[in-house]
Amino acid sequence: MTISNTPPSARGILLFAHGSRDARWREPVEAVARSVIAQDPTARVACAYLELVEPDLPTAAGALIAHGARSIRVVPLFLGMGKHVREDLPLLIEQLRTAHPAVDFSLAPAVGEAPEVIALLARMALKN
Amino acid sequence: MTISNTPPSARGILLFAHGSRDARWREPVEAVARSVIAQDPTARVACAYLELVEPDLPTAAGALIAHGARSIRVVPLFLGMGKHVREDLPLLIEQLRTAHPAVDFSLAPAVGEAPEVIALLARMALKN
Repeated sequence: MTISNTPPSARGILLFAHGSRDARWREPVEAVARSVIAQDPTARVACAYLELVEPDLPTAAGALIAHGARSIRVVPLFLGMGKHVREDLPLLIEQLRTAHPAVDFSLAPAVGEAPEVIALLARMALKN
Repeated sequence: MTISNTPPSARGILLFAHGSRDARWREPVEAVARSVIAQDPTARVACAYLELVEPDLPTAAGALIAHGARSIRVVPLFLGMGKHVREDLPLLIEQLRTAHPAVDFSLAPAVGEAPEVIALLARMALKN
């Protein structure tokens, strides 16, 4: 049996959202980050944005790595499945892998693809 | 006791999303609409988009009204709380109320404001 020397906190979670000129746009993204910490106080989580809001993905990934992350799961907080998620994001992940070959990057499905998210949004639409 | 002549189906649900040039962008929106019907087969539901995808909000609302909807709940499928949700959408709702004074329009909170959505997205971010 091998016991890993890697602590659980060596895994980082990067919440990736679109961004907006509007300063309040990112409030729900930051709320998700707080909820991640509330559900798992050992989690290392950061937010990153495609455009118009800092930090971008390389900056946020670099910060997680500087704090010891050796694997990073990128979670696209996108409801719509457009070019940003299907084309831009995989390219960004490849650039991260090239820049940090020792770090294990994984790309989660966009949240809008998850059946449990779809079902919850439908339940909310049916509320009175 | 008053018994309403209005059938339950006189209530329409309008799922309102941003829109994108990308044809596949609306797939999750349409999946939410299908889930609404699956959860309540009597529901009348339509999708509408702020830009780049047809139909727009007035067109979709008009179709629901033409099919008998006498009240319409507009549900913003937006995660981020930007200008579109805080400023554009209330103006669009006012225009709908002016155009259809006999119809009762209500505006649900954006889904990104809902604690249960935030918590679910955090649980998904923590998945392996």
